[in-house]
Amino acid sequence: MKISIERGTLLKAVAQAQSVVERRNTIPILANVLIEADANSVSFRATDLDIEVVDKTVAHVERPGATTVSAVTLHEIVRKLPDGALVQLTDDGTSGRLTVEAGRSNFALATLPKEDFPVMASSEYQSNFSAPAPVLRRLFDKSKFAISTEETRYYLNGVYMHVAEAEDGRMLRCVATDGHRLARIDTPLPEGAADMPGVIVPRKTVGELRKLLDDDDAEIAVSVSETKVRFATPEITLTSKVIDGTFPDYTRVIPMGNTRRLEVDAQEFAKAVDRVATVSSERSRAVKLSLDEDRLILSVNAPDSGAAEEELAVAYADEKLEIGFNAKYLLEIASQVDRENAVFMFNSSGDPTLMREGNDSSAVYVVMPMRV
Amino acid sequence: MKISIERGTLLKAVAQAQSVVERRNTIPILANVLIEADANSVSFRATDLDIEVVDKTVAHVERPGATTVSAVTLHEIVRKLPDGALVQLTDDGTSGRLTVEAGRSNFALATLPKEDFPVMASSEYQSNFSAPAPVLRRLFDKSKFAISTEETRYYLNGVYMHVAEAEDGRMLRCVATDGHRLARIDTPLPEGAADMPGVIVPRKTVGELRKLLDDDDAEIAVSVSETKVRFATPEITLTSKVIDGTFPDYTRVIPMGNTRRLEVDAQEFAKAVDRVATVSSERSRAVKLSLDEDRLILSVNAPDSGAAEEELAVAYADEKLEIGFNAKYLLEIASQVDRENAVFMFNSSGDPTLMREGNDSSAVYVVMPMRV
Repeated sequence: MKISIERGTLLKAVAQAQSVVERRNTIPILANVLIEADANSVSFRATDLDIEVVDKTVAHVERPGATTVSAVTLHEIVRKLPDGALVQLTDDGTSGRLTVEAGRSNFALATLPKEDFPVMASSEYQSNFSAPAPVLRRLFDKSKFAISTEETRYYLNGVYMHVAEAEDGRMLRCVATDGHRLARIDTPLPEGAADMPGVIVPRKTVGELRKLLDDDDAEIAVSVSETKVRFATPEITLTSKVIDGTFPDYTRVIPMGNTRRLEVDAQEFAKAVDRVATVSSERSRAVKLSLDEDRLILSVNAPDSGAAEEELAVAYADEKLEIGFNAKYLLEIASQVDRENAVFMFNSSGDPTLMREGNDSSAVYVVMPMRV
Repeated sequence: MKISIERGTLLKAVAQAQSVVERRNTIPILANVLIEADANSVSFRATDLDIEVVDKTVAHVERPGATTVSAVTLHEIVRKLPDGALVQLTDDGTSGRLTVEAGRSNFALATLPKEDFPVMASSEYQSNFSAPAPVLRRLFDKSKFAISTEETRYYLNGVYMHVAEAEDGRMLRCVATDGHRLARIDTPLPEGAADMPGVIVPRKTVGELRKLLDDDDAEIAVSVSETKVRFATPEITLTSKVIDGTFPDYTRVIPMGNTRRLEVDAQEFAKAVDRVATVSSERSRAVKLSLDEDRLILSVNAPDSGAAEEELAVAYADEKLEIGFNAKYLLEIASQVDRENAVFMFNSSGDPTLMREGNDSSAVYVVMPMRV
């Protein structure tokens, strides 16, 4: 193998690969990136056995071939090379070394045989559709904060992407929850997605996927089977196993009959919650909301450290209510609001509360109250 | 006590205080800041029993008095208050609470009696002088990287500030070393400093001092005794115990007879060292320098991960030399060079190497070689 490639192009490809690679590996080859050069393109492939990413890029290929080297070391080297450098990768196939040359720098990296690299088996996908990057970005960005980190509840360790029936028709929906709060984000069903099986996309996959979604003009090809999901741009293909479990029936959790309506500027609300929570105990982080006509009082009472109180002018026309929440949960859902005021729908102080942006029901959040 | 103070002024004073306070305290009052209000100024005092910082600031004092509250909590609250807010601190002396009010926010923080706060005993200082902030900044910034972190060698856990005899006369000198490398930084002796006893300024004090030195126009009052050192601006007074130990005779370590001279662009050199070190083993970080006529080859050979080599055009007119160093040490001293080329003076591959900026001997660095 002998190829020449511009430093910036190489850096982008290797960055994506090294981010999938786990830092601690018992199987040495999983630390490596598989570099495959054919006539006029090079692909960089990395895997942790659950996720595989392949970045295909144009390069000047002098001699096709394939080998594997440490993804982290190659990434570090390319990162430190000067901007605009032309990088030459050479593997003579016998020395067990990949030569990386750029200007007056010269590296020889230990390789492992390409045959040992575990390439993910290809799958039959039941559903193939495409969606603009900003649409997928919204679905996952607004839901991922609610993913559970409890390993015993493995079926909550991801975002449940599925087809759902909503008021405005069939939707592509992402749901995540950890039992304390829940996010449900909808977008109109893309063409070809109707038969998609519901899948739980693991947390790490959501993180890797995010890097494919930065380009506002990109169109992402999505393929889904019962066991795998694939997201692809023309350059990058991210394939991931999905979580083998059943996502719980979340619909029961979403309160439909809450009638007490609070409307508040989300940013002002978040800042005030953050301020009063300063004195709350590290463990509970409890904040009390006291609602009265067009007035919200946020308060914290922590015997050890002190007390805090802040008043906000809000829109509220229902009867008095006192309800407590974990400040962290309130801050997280308030920070999802980006266009309109936050609208909270309460029932009693013991019932789950719903939040959405204005009257838009394409993104709703549920948060469980706590005793204060 | 009842005072009004602008949020920005309060934040600056409390920020300095909370940074001295240790995060884990067995003595509760050490987590607190002592707030003392007299006729028209307020002082904020914090201590870890080794370092004491007092920030005195102008405020509208309605009722003088004093109390103590958690430095971290007060800092967090003030940080989260809106820019430009007027903050009112009230302590009625009986409730055990300090009230913090700003706009519609209201906090009541638990206090501890001011009588319990350990105010550092005042000292007789043998030497009082003043120095411009940029002068002190240079002395400490260029030496602190070499401070030892080995707790058993406690006498190396700081910067040795003392008066020294140099070629150009008597100097105020800062020295730090960990046995592997050494930094020696000089500045002309300020008036009044001649009788100063040599003191070892602890690492934490150096860090806190740094915050007083950002203002290029500030003049810092320095006071030194055998046991304490004090740095003061008109607002902030930082008093610290010095390390009770004897700094070793570092002059023996500084090579005077090294004749092989290498001159190199410090930035280019640092980048190249950083690149080749990528493949070095995590533990040794060894980089080999091979010097020949006007040519420097940096190389690393790590059997496990691979090899790296880079050539640099340099000024070198002495006989061939091969010498090895810890890449981290080379990078740290190279990053101290800010005006001219780095000049290295070598003897043999087993002897300490000296580095300075151009021909300026007011900042010299010594680094021990290692076998490669």
